[in-house]
Amino acid sequence: MITNRFEHPLNEKTRMYLRVESLLRQLQHSSSCSDSYQYQIFFKSLFDLLEIFEQIQLKSELAKDLEKQRQTYRAWLNVDGVDQEMLGSILRDLDAVHKNLMMAERFGQSLKEDRFLSTIRQRFGLPGGSCCFDLPSLHYWLHIPIEKRMQDTEAWLASVKPLMNALQLWLKLTRETGRFKKQIARSGFYQSDAEEANILRLTIPMEYGVYPMISGHKNRFAVKFIAFESGQAYPNDIEFELAVCS
Amino acid sequence: MITNRFEHPLNEKTRMYLRVESLLRQLQHSSSCSDSYQYQIFFKSLFDLLEIFEQIQLKSELAKDLEKQRQTYRAWLNVDGVDQEMLGSILRDLDAVHKNLMMAERFGQSLKEDRFLSTIRQRFGLPGGSCCFDLPSLHYWLHIPIEKRMQDTEAWLASVKPLMNALQLWLKLTRETGRFKKQIARSGFYQSDAEEANILRLTIPMEYGVYPMISGHKNRFAVKFIAFESGQAYPNDIEFELAVCS
Repeated sequence: MITNRFEHPLNEKTRMYLRVESLLRQLQHSSSCSDSYQYQIFFKSLFDLLEIFEQIQLKSELAKDLEKQRQTYRAWLNVDGVDQEMLGSILRDLDAVHKNLMMAERFGQSLKEDRFLSTIRQRFGLPGGSCCFDLPSLHYWLHIPIEKRMQDTEAWLASVKPLMNALQLWLKLTRETGRFKKQIARSGFYQSDAEEANILRLTIPMEYGVYPMISGHKNRFAVKFIAFESGQAYPNDIEFELAVCS
Repeated sequence: MITNRFEHPLNEKTRMYLRVESLLRQLQHSSSCSDSYQYQIFFKSLFDLLEIFEQIQLKSELAKDLEKQRQTYRAWLNVDGVDQEMLGSILRDLDAVHKNLMMAERFGQSLKEDRFLSTIRQRFGLPGGSCCFDLPSLHYWLHIPIEKRMQDTEAWLASVKPLMNALQLWLKLTRETGRFKKQIARSGFYQSDAEEANILRLTIPMEYGVYPMISGHKNRFAVKFIAFESGQAYPNDIEFELAVCS
Protein backbone atom coordinates (compact mmCIF):
# COMPACT_ATOMS: atom_id res chain seq x y z
CA MET A 1 0.00 0.00 0.00
CA ILE A 2 1.41 3.39 -1.00
CA THR A 3 1.25 5.89 1.81
CA ASN A 4 1.95 9.54 2.35
CA ARG A 5 4.28 10.13 5.31
CA PHE A 6 3.61 13.45 6.88
CA GLU A 7 5.07 15.45 9.75
CA HIS A 8 3.70 18.47 11.54
CA PRO A 9 5.47 20.59 14.20
CA LEU A 10 3.43 21.70 17.21
CA ASN A 11 5.49 24.76 18.10
CA GLU A 12 7.39 27.50 16.31
CA LYS A 13 10.83 26.24 17.30
CA THR A 14 10.24 22.72 16.02
CA ARG A 15 8.78 24.23 12.83
CA MET A 16 12.09 25.99 12.31
CA TYR A 17 14.07 22.82 13.12
CA LEU A 18 12.15 20.85 10.50
CA ARG A 19 12.63 23.58 7.90
CA VAL A 20 16.35 23.67 8.61
CA GLU A 21 16.53 19.86 8.42
CA SER A 22 14.86 19.95 5.02
CA LEU A 23 17.22 22.67 3.77
CA LEU A 24 20.25 20.74 5.02
CA ARG A 25 19.03 17.62 3.19
CA GLN A 26 18.64 19.57 -0.04
CA LEU A 27 22.05 21.09 0.46
CA GLN A 28 23.72 17.74 0.95
CA HIS A 29 21.89 16.12 -1.94
CA SER A 30 22.73 18.91 -4.38
CA SER A 31 26.35 19.33 -3.28
CA SER A 32 27.40 16.56 -5.67
CA CYS A 33 26.84 18.96 -8.62
CA SER A 34 25.91 15.89 -10.67
CA ASP A 35 23.09 17.58 -12.54
CA SER A 36 23.75 20.80 -14.46
CA TYR A 37 21.02 22.71 -12.62
CA GLN A 38 21.60 21.35 -9.12
CA TYR A 39 23.68 24.38 -8.22
CA GLN A 40 20.38 26.28 -8.21
CA ILE A 41 19.08 24.10 -5.36
CA PHE A 42 22.42 24.19 -3.60
CA PHE A 43 22.73 27.99 -3.44
CA LYS A 44 19.02 28.54 -2.84
CA SER A 45 19.17 26.21 0.19
CA LEU A 46 22.40 27.77 1.43
CA PHE A 47 21.02 31.33 1.24
CA ASP A 48 17.72 30.24 2.82
CA LEU A 49 19.73 28.80 5.71
CA LEU A 50 21.69 32.04 6.08
CA GLU A 51 18.41 33.95 6.24
CA ILE A 52 17.16 31.67 9.01
CA PHE A 53 20.47 31.98 10.91
CA GLU A 54 20.07 35.76 10.80
CA GLN A 55 16.52 35.58 12.15
CA ILE A 56 16.84 33.18 15.08
CA GLN A 57 19.38 32.07 17.64
CA LEU A 58 19.38 28.51 16.39
CA LYS A 59 22.58 27.52 18.16
CA SER A 60 21.58 28.40 21.71
CA GLU A 61 18.04 27.02 21.22
CA LEU A 62 19.41 23.72 20.01
CA ALA A 63 22.01 23.54 22.78
CA LYS A 64 19.24 24.03 25.37
CA ASP A 65 17.09 21.35 23.77
CA LEU A 66 19.95 18.86 23.64
CA GLU A 67 20.67 19.55 27.29
CA LYS A 68 17.02 18.83 28.12
CA GLN A 69 17.20 15.53 26.24
CA ARG A 70 20.42 14.68 28.07
CA GLN A 71 18.74 15.19 31.44
CA THR A 72 15.78 13.03 30.41
CA TYR A 73 18.06 10.17 29.42
CA ARG A 74 20.30 10.57 32.47
CA ALA A 75 17.27 9.96 34.67
CA TRP A 76 17.15 6.40 33.27
CA LEU A 77 20.71 5.58 34.36
CA ASN A 78 20.84 2.57 36.70
CA VAL A 79 17.08 2.02 36.44
CA ASP A 80 16.15 -1.66 36.37
CA GLY A 81 14.87 -2.98 33.05
CA VAL A 82 16.45 -0.17 31.02
CA ASP A 83 19.03 -1.26 28.44
CA GLN A 84 22.05 0.48 30.00
CA GLU A 85 24.30 -0.21 27.02
CA MET A 86 21.98 1.54 24.57
CA LEU A 87 21.40 4.34 27.07
CA GLY A 88 25.15 4.85 27.44
CA SER A 89 25.54 5.03 23.68
CA ILE A 90 22.78 7.67 23.37
CA LEU A 91 24.33 9.73 26.18
CA ARG A 92 27.77 9.57 24.56
CA ASP A 93 26.26 10.74 21.23
CA LEU A 94 24.47 13.58 23.00
CA ASP A 95 27.65 14.64 24.78
CA ALA A 96 29.62 14.61 21.54
CA VAL A 97 27.21 16.65 19.40
CA HIS A 98 26.59 19.09 22.26
CA LYS A 99 30.31 19.65 22.69
CA ASN A 100 30.89 20.16 18.95
CA LEU A 101 27.92 22.47 18.79
CA MET A 102 29.28 24.66 21.58
CA MET A 103 32.71 24.77 19.95
CA ALA A 104 31.30 25.70 16.53
CA GLU A 105 31.40 29.23 15.13
CA ARG A 106 28.26 31.36 15.12
CA PHE A 107 26.07 29.62 12.51
CA GLY A 108 26.74 30.93 9.03
CA GLN A 109 29.62 33.17 10.07
CA SER A 110 32.23 31.78 7.65
CA LEU A 111 29.61 31.49 4.91
CA LYS A 112 28.74 35.15 5.31
CA GLU A 113 32.43 36.08 5.19
CA ASP A 114 32.99 34.11 1.97
CA ARG A 115 33.60 36.68 -0.76
CA PHE A 116 32.24 34.55 -3.60
CA LEU A 117 29.04 33.68 -1.72
CA SER A 118 28.37 37.27 -0.68
CA THR A 119 28.86 38.45 -4.27
CA ILE A 120 26.19 36.15 -5.61
CA ARG A 121 23.77 36.09 -2.68
CA GLN A 122 22.01 39.38 -3.34
CA ARG A 123 21.05 38.83 -6.97
CA PHE A 124 20.45 35.11 -6.71
CA GLY A 125 16.89 35.63 -5.49
CA LEU A 126 15.83 37.84 -8.41
CA PRO A 127 13.44 36.16 -10.87
CA GLY A 128 15.79 34.60 -13.42
CA GLY A 129 18.64 36.36 -11.66
CA SER A 130 21.20 33.59 -12.03
CA CYS A 131 21.95 34.43 -15.68
CA CYS A 132 25.61 34.89 -16.59
CA PHE A 133 25.29 38.67 -16.98
CA ASP A 134 23.63 39.01 -13.57
CA LEU A 135 26.17 36.80 -11.80
CA PRO A 136 29.34 36.61 -13.90
CA SER A 137 31.39 35.16 -11.04
CA LEU A 138 28.86 32.33 -10.53
CA HIS A 139 28.99 31.67 -14.27
CA TYR A 140 32.77 31.42 -14.06
CA TRP A 141 32.55 29.09 -11.07
CA LEU A 142 30.19 26.80 -13.00
CA HIS A 143 32.92 26.41 -15.65
CA ILE A 144 35.71 25.31 -13.34
CA PRO A 145 36.41 21.55 -13.06
CA ILE A 146 33.84 19.60 -11.05
CA GLU A 147 36.52 18.42 -8.58
CA LYS A 148 37.26 22.02 -7.63
CA ARG A 149 33.57 22.84 -7.35
CA MET A 150 33.00 19.85 -5.11
CA GLN A 151 35.87 20.97 -2.90
CA ASP A 152 34.07 24.29 -2.51
CA THR A 153 30.66 22.79 -1.79
CA GLU A 154 32.24 20.39 0.71
CA ALA A 155 33.98 23.25 2.52
CA TRP A 156 30.72 25.21 2.74
CA LEU A 157 28.92 22.09 3.94
CA ALA A 158 31.60 21.43 6.55
CA SER A 159 30.77 24.72 8.25
CA VAL A 160 27.20 23.55 8.95
CA LYS A 161 28.22 20.01 10.02
CA PRO A 162 28.00 20.67 13.82
CA LEU A 163 24.48 22.04 13.30
CA MET A 164 23.56 19.12 11.07
CA ASN A 165 24.75 16.49 13.56
CA ALA A 166 23.11 18.17 16.53
CA LEU A 167 19.81 18.72 14.77
CA GLN A 168 19.70 15.20 13.33
CA LEU A 169 20.27 13.66 16.75
CA TRP A 170 17.68 15.83 18.48
CA LEU A 171 15.09 15.07 15.78
CA LYS A 172 15.94 11.35 15.75
CA LEU A 173 15.49 11.04 19.53
CA THR A 174 12.34 13.16 19.42
CA ARG A 175 10.82 11.06 16.62
CA GLU A 176 11.64 7.87 18.53
CA THR A 177 9.46 8.95 21.45
CA GLY A 178 6.35 8.43 19.32
CA ARG A 179 4.77 5.09 18.40
CA PHE A 180 2.50 4.80 15.37
CA LYS A 181 -1.06 3.82 16.32
CA LYS A 182 -4.12 3.27 14.13
CA GLN A 183 -6.67 6.09 14.33
CA ILE A 184 -9.90 6.90 12.60
CA ALA A 185 -10.80 10.40 11.45
CA ARG A 186 -14.62 10.41 11.58
CA SER A 187 -15.99 12.30 8.58
CA GLY A 188 -12.44 13.31 7.76
CA PHE A 189 -11.80 14.94 11.14
CA TYR A 190 -9.67 13.93 14.12
CA GLN A 191 -8.70 15.72 17.31
CA SER A 192 -6.86 14.77 20.44
CA ASP A 193 -4.99 15.95 23.49
CA ALA A 194 -1.22 15.65 23.80
CA GLU A 195 1.35 16.33 26.45
CA GLU A 196 4.17 18.72 25.65
CA ALA A 197 4.32 17.26 22.15
CA ASN A 198 6.74 18.57 19.53
CA ILE A 199 5.95 16.66 16.35
CA LEU A 200 2.99 14.75 14.95
CA ARG A 201 3.79 12.03 12.44
CA LEU A 202 1.09 10.64 10.17
CA THR A 203 0.95 7.79 7.69
CA ILE A 204 -1.95 8.26 5.30
CA PRO A 205 -2.92 5.71 2.61
CA MET A 206 -2.73 7.41 -0.78
CA GLU A 207 -5.96 5.69 -1.90
CA TYR A 208 -8.06 8.28 -0.03
CA GLY A 209 -6.59 11.00 -2.22
CA VAL A 210 -6.28 13.37 0.74
CA TYR A 211 -3.74 15.50 2.54
CA PRO A 212 -4.01 16.73 6.15
CA MET A 213 -4.46 20.29 7.39
CA ILE A 214 -3.30 20.38 11.00
CA SER A 215 -3.75 23.03 13.64
CA GLY A 216 -2.90 23.01 17.30
CA HIS A 217 -0.19 23.31 19.89
CA LYS A 218 1.81 21.08 22.23
CA ASN A 219 -1.24 20.06 24.30
CA ARG A 220 -4.06 19.82 21.77
CA PHE A 221 -4.39 19.43 18.02
CA ALA A 222 -6.89 18.81 15.22
CA VAL A 223 -6.44 17.15 11.84
CA LYS A 224 -8.77 17.92 8.96
CA PHE A 225 -8.39 15.90 5.78
CA ILE A 226 -8.74 17.67 2.43
CA ALA A 227 -9.46 15.91 -0.86
CA PHE A 228 -6.63 16.83 -3.25
CA GLU A 229 -8.72 16.89 -6.43
CA SER A 230 -11.56 19.06 -5.15
CA GLY A 231 -9.71 21.06 -2.49
CA GLN A 232 -12.74 20.45 -0.23
CA ALA A 233 -12.99 18.74 3.19
CA TYR A 234 -13.10 14.95 2.82
CA PRO A 235 -16.56 13.81 3.99
CA ASN A 236 -15.92 10.14 4.90
CA ASP A 237 -14.03 8.20 7.57
CA ILE A 238 -10.28 7.81 7.13
CA GLU A 239 -8.07 5.16 8.75
CA PHE A 240 -4.58 6.48 9.30
CA GLU A 241 -1.63 6.03 11.65
CA LEU A 242 -0.49 8.66 14.10
CA ALA A 243 2.57 9.02 16.30
CA VAL A 244 2.78 11.85 18.84
CA CYS A 245 6.41 12.72 19.59
CA SER A 246 7.52 14.84 22.51
CA MET B 1 41.00 24.70 -24.84
CA ILE B 2 38.30 25.16 -22.22
CA THR B 3 36.43 28.41 -22.62
CA ASN B 4 33.79 30.38 -20.82
CA ARG B 5 30.91 31.35 -23.12
CA PHE B 6 29.31 34.51 -21.97
CA GLU B 7 26.41 36.66 -23.11
CA HIS B 8 25.48 40.19 -22.16
CA PRO B 9 22.32 42.09 -23.13
CA LEU B 10 22.69 45.72 -24.15
CA ASN B 11 19.17 46.85 -23.29
CA GLU B 12 16.56 46.15 -20.65
CA LYS B 13 14.22 44.26 -22.96
CA THR B 14 16.89 41.84 -24.15
CA ARG B 15 17.99 41.41 -20.54
CA MET B 16 14.47 40.22 -19.75
CA TYR B 17 14.38 37.97 -22.84
CA LEU B 18 17.59 36.25 -21.76
CA ARG B 19 16.32 35.79 -18.21
CA VAL B 20 13.09 34.29 -19.51
CA GLU B 21 15.04 32.02 -21.88
CA SER B 22 17.13 30.78 -18.97
CA LEU B 23 14.02 30.16 -16.82
CA LEU B 24 12.31 28.30 -19.67
CA ARG B 25 15.39 26.10 -20.07
CA GLN B 26 15.40 25.27 -16.36
CA LEU B 27 11.69 24.58 -16.52
CA GLN B 28 12.03 22.18 -19.42
CA HIS B 29 15.05 20.44 -17.95
CA SER B 30 13.41 19.90 -14.57
CA SER B 31 9.99 18.90 -15.91
CA SER B 32 11.17 15.29 -16.20
CA CYS B 33 10.99 14.98 -12.36
CA SER B 34 13.87 12.49 -12.65
CA ASP B 35 15.66 13.73 -9.53
CA SER B 36 13.83 13.87 -6.23
CA TYR B 37 14.60 17.57 -5.71
CA GLN B 38 14.08 18.78 -9.28
CA TYR B 39 10.55 19.88 -8.44
CA GLN B 40 12.20 22.70 -6.48
CA ILE B 41 13.79 24.04 -9.66
CA PHE B 42 10.63 23.43 -11.65
CA PHE B 43 8.31 25.42 -9.37
CA LYS B 44 10.89 28.12 -8.63
CA SER B 45 11.34 28.73 -12.38
CA LEU B 46 7.59 28.63 -12.98
CA PHE B 47 6.85 31.17 -10.25
CA ASP B 48 9.75 33.38 -11.36
CA LEU B 49 8.25 33.39 -14.85
CA LEU B 50 4.83 34.33 -13.46
CA GLU B 51 6.42 37.23 -11.61
CA ILE B 52 8.04 38.46 -14.82
CA PHE B 53 4.76 38.07 -16.75
CA GLU B 54 3.10 40.27 -14.15
CA GLN B 55 5.76 42.94 -14.45
CA ILE B 56 6.14 43.38 -18.19
CA GLN B 57 4.06 43.05 -21.36
CA LEU B 58 6.26 40.31 -22.74
CA LYS B 59 3.81 39.18 -25.40
CA SER B 60 3.34 42.49 -27.18
CA GLU B 61 7.07 43.34 -26.95
CA LEU B 62 8.01 40.02 -28.48
CA ALA B 63 5.37 40.32 -31.21
CA LYS B 64 6.76 43.74 -32.17
CA ASP B 65 10.32 42.41 -32.25
CA LEU B 66 9.37 39.42 -34.38
CA GLU B 67 7.58 41.76 -36.78
CA LYS B 68 10.72 43.88 -37.03
CA GLN B 69 12.79 40.78 -37.81
CA ARG B 70 10.23 39.75 -40.42
CA GLN B 71 10.55 43.10 -42.18
CA THR B 72 14.34 42.88 -42.16
CA TYR B 73 14.27 39.44 -43.77
CA ARG B 74 11.54 40.42 -46.25
CA ALA B 75 13.83 43.14 -47.57
CA TRP B 76 16.15 40.36 -48.81
CA LEU B 77 13.46 38.68 -50.91
CA ASN B 78 14.44 38.50 -54.61
CA VAL B 79 17.84 40.05 -53.92
CA ASP B 80 20.59 38.48 -56.03
CA GLY B 81 23.08 36.32 -54.16
CA VAL B 82 20.76 35.69 -51.22
CA ASP B 83 19.83 32.04 -50.60
CA GLN B 84 16.09 32.40 -51.31
CA GLU B 85 15.29 28.90 -50.10
CA MET B 86 16.79 29.51 -46.66
CA LEU B 87 15.21 32.97 -46.54
CA GLY B 88 11.80 31.46 -47.35
CA SER B 89 12.24 28.93 -44.55
CA ILE B 90 13.12 31.66 -42.01
CA LEU B 91 10.14 33.75 -43.07
CA ARG B 92 7.79 30.77 -42.77
CA ASP B 93 9.14 30.08 -39.25
CA LEU B 94 8.68 33.73 -38.30
CA ASP B 95 5.11 33.75 -39.65
CA ALA B 96 4.26 30.57 -37.75
CA VAL B 97 5.61 31.60 -34.32
CA HIS B 98 4.16 35.10 -34.71
CA LYS B 99 0.73 33.66 -35.50
CA ASN B 100 0.84 31.23 -32.58
CA LEU B 101 2.05 33.98 -30.29
CA MET B 102 -0.87 36.24 -31.24
CA MET B 103 -3.34 33.40 -30.74
CA ALA B 104 -1.93 32.46 -27.33
CA GLU B 105 -3.59 33.42 -24.07
CA ARG B 106 -2.19 36.24 -21.97
CA PHE B 107 1.13 34.79 -20.70
CA GLY B 108 0.66 32.90 -17.48
CA GLN B 109 -3.12 33.24 -17.42
CA SER B 110 -3.94 29.53 -17.16
CA LEU B 111 -1.04 29.01 -14.75
CA LYS B 112 -2.41 31.73 -12.50
CA GLU B 113 -5.86 30.16 -12.63
CA ASP B 114 -4.54 26.71 -11.69
CA ARG B 115 -5.79 26.01 -8.18
CA PHE B 116 -2.91 23.76 -7.16
CA LEU B 117 -0.27 26.22 -8.38
CA SER B 118 -1.89 29.20 -6.66
CA THR B 119 -2.12 27.26 -3.40
CA ILE B 120 1.60 26.58 -3.31
CA ARG B 121 2.93 29.76 -4.93
CA GLN B 122 2.74 32.04 -1.93
CA ARG B 123 4.64 29.92 0.58
CA PHE B 124 7.06 28.39 -1.88
CA GLY B 125 9.39 31.39 -1.64
CA LEU B 126 9.74 31.27 2.16
CA PRO B 127 13.14 30.06 3.44
CA GLY B 128 12.64 26.30 3.73
CA GLY B 129 8.97 26.86 2.95
CA SER B 130 8.45 23.75 0.85
CA CYS B 131 8.23 21.46 3.89
CA CYS B 132 5.22 19.14 4.02
CA PHE B 133 3.52 21.11 6.82
CA ASP B 134 3.92 24.39 4.93
CA LEU B 135 2.67 22.97 1.65
CA PRO B 136 0.65 19.79 2.33
CA SER B 137 -0.87 19.75 -1.15
CA LEU B 138 2.58 19.89 -2.77
CA HIS B 139 3.68 17.07 -0.49
CA TYR B 140 0.68 15.03 -1.67
CA TRP B 141 1.44 15.82 -5.30
CA LEU B 142 5.04 14.60 -4.85
CA HIS B 143 3.63 11.20 -3.78
CA ILE B 144 1.42 10.60 -6.81
CA PRO B 145 2.82 8.37 -9.58
CA ILE B 146 5.51 9.98 -11.74
CA GLU B 147 3.41 9.50 -14.91
CA LYS B 148 0.65 11.66 -13.46
CA ARG B 149 3.15 14.27 -12.28
CA MET B 150 4.72 14.42 -15.72
CA GLN B 151 1.28 14.91 -17.26
CA ASP B 152 0.86 17.93 -15.00
CA THR B 153 4.29 19.42 -15.71
CA GLU B 154 3.73 18.89 -19.44
CA ALA B 155 0.38 20.66 -19.31
CA TRP B 156 1.93 23.61 -17.47
CA LEU B 157 4.80 23.67 -19.96
CA ALA B 158 2.37 23.55 -22.89
CA SER B 159 0.90 26.88 -21.80
CA VAL B 160 4.26 28.61 -22.27
CA LYS B 161 5.11 26.84 -25.57
CA PRO B 162 4.07 29.75 -27.86
CA LEU B 163 6.31 32.07 -25.83
CA MET B 164 9.13 29.54 -25.86
CA ASN B 165 9.02 29.08 -29.64
CA ALA B 166 8.76 32.78 -30.37
CA LEU B 167 11.56 33.72 -27.98
CA GLN B 168 13.86 30.94 -29.15
CA LEU B 169 13.47 32.00 -32.78
CA TRP B 170 14.00 35.69 -32.08
CA LEU B 171 17.13 34.96 -30.01
CA LYS B 172 18.46 32.45 -32.57
CA LEU B 173 18.13 34.96 -35.43
CA THR B 174 19.57 37.74 -33.28
CA ARG B 175 22.56 35.61 -32.25
CA GLU B 176 23.19 34.69 -35.88
CA THR B 177 23.72 38.33 -36.83
CA GLY B 178 27.02 38.35 -34.91
CA ARG B 179 30.30 36.77 -36.06
CA PHE B 180 32.95 35.87 -33.50
CA LYS B 181 36.16 37.86 -34.03
CA LYS B 182 39.44 37.80 -32.10
CA GLN B 183 39.93 40.83 -29.87
CA ILE B 184 42.53 41.89 -27.35
CA ALA B 185 41.65 43.53 -24.05
CA ARG B 186 44.70 45.68 -23.28
CA SER B 187 45.49 45.51 -19.57
CA GLY B 188 42.23 43.62 -19.10
CA PHE B 189 40.08 46.36 -20.65
CA TYR B 190 38.23 46.56 -23.95
CA GLN B 191 35.74 49.07 -25.34
CA SER B 192 34.07 49.58 -28.66
CA ASP B 193 31.20 51.20 -30.55
CA ALA B 194 28.25 49.21 -31.80
CA GLU B 195 25.19 49.91 -33.90
CA GLU B 196 21.80 49.17 -32.39
CA ALA B 197 23.26 46.04 -30.81
CA ASN B 198 21.17 43.75 -28.61
CA ILE B 199 23.56 41.11 -27.34
CA LEU B 200 27.31 40.75 -26.88
CA ARG B 201 28.68 37.22 -27.00
CA LEU B 202 32.14 36.45 -25.63
CA THR B 203 34.35 33.39 -25.62
CA ILE B 204 37.00 33.66 -22.92
CA PRO B 205 39.75 31.07 -22.38
CA MET B 206 39.46 29.69 -18.84
CA GLU B 207 43.25 29.78 -18.44
CA TYR B 208 43.15 33.52 -17.66
CA GLY B 209 40.97 32.80 -14.62
CA VAL B 210 38.77 35.83 -15.33
CA TYR B 211 35.17 36.78 -15.83
CA PRO B 212 33.90 39.91 -17.62
CA MET B 213 32.08 42.90 -16.14
CA ILE B 214 30.27 44.64 -18.95
CA SER B 215 28.64 48.04 -19.07
CA GLY B 216 27.14 49.92 -21.97
CA HIS B 217 24.18 50.29 -24.26
CA LYS B 218 23.23 49.50 -27.85
CA ASN B 219 25.77 51.94 -29.34
CA ARG B 220 28.77 51.69 -27.00
CA PHE B 221 30.09 49.24 -24.45
CA ALA B 222 33.09 48.44 -22.26
CA VAL B 223 34.38 45.11 -20.95
CA LYS B 224 36.51 44.93 -17.82
CA PHE B 225 38.01 41.59 -16.89
CA ILE B 226 38.09 40.58 -13.23
CA ALA B 227 40.35 37.89 -11.80
CA PHE B 228 38.10 35.31 -10.09
CA GLU B 229 40.49 34.44 -7.27
CA SER B 230 41.32 37.98 -6.15
CA GLY B 231 38.15 39.77 -7.23
CA GLN B 232 40.44 42.53 -8.60
CA ALA B 233 40.80 43.95 -12.12
CA TYR B 234 43.02 41.71 -14.29
CA PRO B 235 46.16 43.69 -15.12
CA ASN B 236 47.41 41.93 -18.29
CA ASP B 237 46.31 41.58 -21.92
CA ILE B 238 43.57 39.07 -22.69
CA GLU B 239 42.84 37.50 -26.06
CA PHE B 240 39.17 36.68 -26.40
CA GLU B 241 36.50 36.37 -29.06
CA LEU B 242 33.61 38.76 -29.41
CA ALA B 243 30.41 38.74 -31.48
CA VAL B 244 28.16 41.80 -31.55
CA CYS B 245 24.58 40.79 -32.35
CA SER B 246 21.87 43.24 -33.38
